[in-house]
Amino acid sequence: MTKRVASVIGLGLIGGSVARGLQASAQFDEVVGYDHDAKTLALALELQVVQRVETSLQAALADTDLVVIAVPTMKAAELLEQVLQYTTSSTVVTDVASVKGPVLDASSGAPNFVGGHPIAGSERSGVEASRADLFHDHRVILTPTEATSAEALAMVREFWTLAGAEVVDMDVQTHDAILASTSHLPHMLAYALVDALSHSTLCDDIFRFAAGGFRDFTRIASSDPIMWRDIALANRDELLRAIDSFSDHLGTLRESIENGEAEALETCFADARDARDAFIKRQAS
Amino acid sequence: MTKRVASVIGLGLIGGSVARGLQASAQFDEVVGYDHDAKTLALALELQVVQRVETSLQAALADTDLVVIAVPTMKAAELLEQVLQYTTSSTVVTDVASVKGPVLDASSGAPNFVGGHPIAGSERSGVEASRADLFHDHRVILTPTEATSAEALAMVREFWTLAGAEVVDMDVQTHDAILASTSHLPHMLAYALVDALSHSTLCDDIFRFAAGGFRDFTRIASSDPIMWRDIALANRDELLRAIDSFSDHLGTLRESIENGEAEALETCFADARDARDAFIKRQAS
Repeated sequence: MTKRVASVIGLGLIGGSVARGLQASAQFDEVVGYDHDAKTLALALELQVVQRVETSLQAALADTDLVVIAVPTMKAAELLEQVLQYTTSSTVVTDVASVKGPVLDASSGAPNFVGGHPIAGSERSGVEASRADLFHDHRVILTPTEATSAEALAMVREFWTLAGAEVVDMDVQTHDAILASTSHLPHMLAYALVDALSHSTLCDDIFRFAAGGFRDFTRIASSDPIMWRDIALANRDELLRAIDSFSDHLGTLRESIENGEAEALETCFADARDARDAFIKRQAS
Repeated sequence: MTKRVASVIGLGLIGGSVARGLQASAQFDEVVGYDHDAKTLALALELQVVQRVETSLQAALADTDLVVIAVPTMKAAELLEQVLQYTTSSTVVTDVASVKGPVLDASSGAPNFVGGHPIAGSERSGVEASRADLFHDHRVILTPTEATSAEALAMVREFWTLAGAEVVDMDVQTHDAILASTSHLPHMLAYALVDALSHSTLCDDIFRFAAGGFRDFTRIASSDPIMWRDIALANRDELLRAIDSFSDHLGTLRESIENGEAEALETCFADARDARDAFIKRQAS
């Protein structure tokens, strides 16, 4: 029997956790890792995150059955083009980028490619923070197209299911619109708020007297600036739409405050509270 | 020796905790409570939050040395006018409202009045959630004016210090501007975000795929709509200024995204992260 091999390209928190999950599920005989950083590769081997490492992308892709591209969003599209050049259509290729539009474009309708996005993360980063159970009870969105082969989709779905995730299919545009709203927009708002306050003349006192609510609200402003720069650029159109929709609603709220419209304010706040409480309740159940 | 009496008007979470703190510090011989709600009064007595209750405001104010007004922001100004009518200048009066401008106006320069605002709270509410240590290690901002008597300020400062709080003096306008930025604006943004998303055509999916960052970011949108309606109206001018400053910064960020200005985005995100991290570090130390 031929040895079944999976290759993970990029061994950060997500790639490392994918590799550990692939080993734990025993779906493949060997899990190979590649990273452009030699120290990361050595550490991945030492920590047994992968069973073999390769120092060239091409070597890591030789005779492999599944390739998981786990590099930052802006690199994923470029790397996907290379991976598709170095592999045949019998190799299934997937990725984990937070924005799916650019990756889909780079796939040029290859039937063996399935876009993916695990809705999971951690405040920690790097291969040393990777865990086989990172995706347990988390959602993974796959974005197959009409061109995607059923076999490729089945293999990627199996791998995520074995990693403990709940797999949901979605078209690319819906994915990018939803993520713009739930994740990318809140990050922009948190960054913009801290940016605005840190440029205020009252800056020192503002941060001195901020309380718990402010800490929670701005937690995501402590996220990696380069990662978020890339996400903002990769999901530009959907993010602009989300910002504009938010600004419209904030503008209406501003008008209600200016005009002293007590009832409109109370209705808006009560509706928002109810929507948020319903969301939390559904998550908990 | 004359019996020293303190009266707490409004026995919710804050008022109840003030009353418990006053009893614990033994600064006064008796702590009297008044609330417009008979059930709350009965419960306050049963839970020994106060030592005596009165069912009329006037009775609760008779022969008292210190009055703490602990009613919602919009009620505080109105109630302060009544309290000043029913008491003499030898009674020290303070309050705990989140916005200080309207209360200061209502005080008409009475030297025995000291505006106050404990930066503390809890997700719970009501007299049953009150605790003597609610203000321990929290900041309390006092807003004395040139008219305020030194004796009144000293008594209010002593009471908060005995309750374990760190007392800071500030002028009213600075207080209202700082709170607009650190607390009132973030609440408006969280409400506006949830409002925008809950009106989206993708609403169901948006809430379905929201993750932990979204939960943290929108936590404050679960706050009491009536309380926040009142705060928004009471601090209108400073809040509008804060919203406009935020909108300017968000507009700049939007432009950088639209124009693909990678460097400007990275700088903005990195500066915001550094400012936020410095704030958290200072809080922890």
